[in-house]
Amino acid sequence: MISGRCAACKYLRRRCASDCIFSPYFPANNPQRFACVHKIYGASNVGKLLQQLPEDLRAKAAESMYYEAQCRIKDPVYGCVAIISLLHQQIHILESQLAKSRAELAVLMMPQPEESEIGHETSFNNFLLEQVGSVAHSGQYSIQDSSGFM
Amino acid sequence: MISGRCAACKYLRRRCASDCIFSPYFPANNPQRFACVHKIYGASNVGKLLQQLPEDLRAKAAESMYYEAQCRIKDPVYGCVAIISLLHQQIHILESQLAKSRAELAVLMMPQPEESEIGHETSFNNFLLEQVGSVAHSGQYSIQDSSGFM
Repeated sequence: MISGRCAACKYLRRRCASDCIFSPYFPANNPQRFACVHKIYGASNVGKLLQQLPEDLRAKAAESMYYEAQCRIKDPVYGCVAIISLLHQQIHILESQLAKSRAELAVLMMPQPEESEIGHETSFNNFLLEQVGSVAHSGQYSIQDSSGFM
Repeated sequence: MISGRCAACKYLRRRCASDCIFSPYFPANNPQRFACVHKIYGASNVGKLLQQLPEDLRAKAAESMYYEAQCRIKDPVYGCVAIISLLHQQIHILESQLAKSRAELAVLMMPQPEESEIGHETSFNNFLLEQVGSVAHSGQYSIQDSSGFM
């Protein structure tokens, strides 16, 4: 089926067999998709990886390899590990903001003082809120960047 | 230098030249590191990628390729895209918790009522806090999973 060759077989200038491992995942109308995974993994490695998987998982594998290959072409040093590091940073920031917000809430939810104690209590609450602010900015995070590259 | 071959040259059973592209990043005492990137990318692709980079960035590139290759061996379907999806989920949860906490704070920080209005105001604040809870659980997130696989 030379005329109906998939993107991989066109690229590799070979006959596209009816049971071609690439054909369902690398259609002829998207040659860039195959070129991308071929550049990073090599056709043979992509074929091997797809072959070892059950058929119903191959589309997902082709998609994730394409995603990683695109990342590596855009960023040859870090590939999609750069994205993982950015997401870890985002999580650190959110955890810090959440800790601050929850600590502020805890202070405000404290039992209300008696009428005569209002003056002291208010200034003590303000003191606690200030402490909350400084602790939240000191960077005590529970989740570490597991990639460890950046 | 047959006796001092790097892990790549040992694996490929070839002479390790003094300017071997793999040698600084794939030491002989860690053969599994090279075997891993070779299985996923192929030695030739790893060598090409390192060669195209300035020398000071090659160690980072070798490290990130090793990380991605390990992920792909552990999870042949999703590779490290699985980690990206998990981190996105974690960010969604944290954003939701932060929105809830901040909305609760906003309610509690409202101006205090006059003595005579305390009864009404308290029940209105409780109503607002309940609304905050239900909105925070309705899943209005600003960051979407850019990988789009899971």
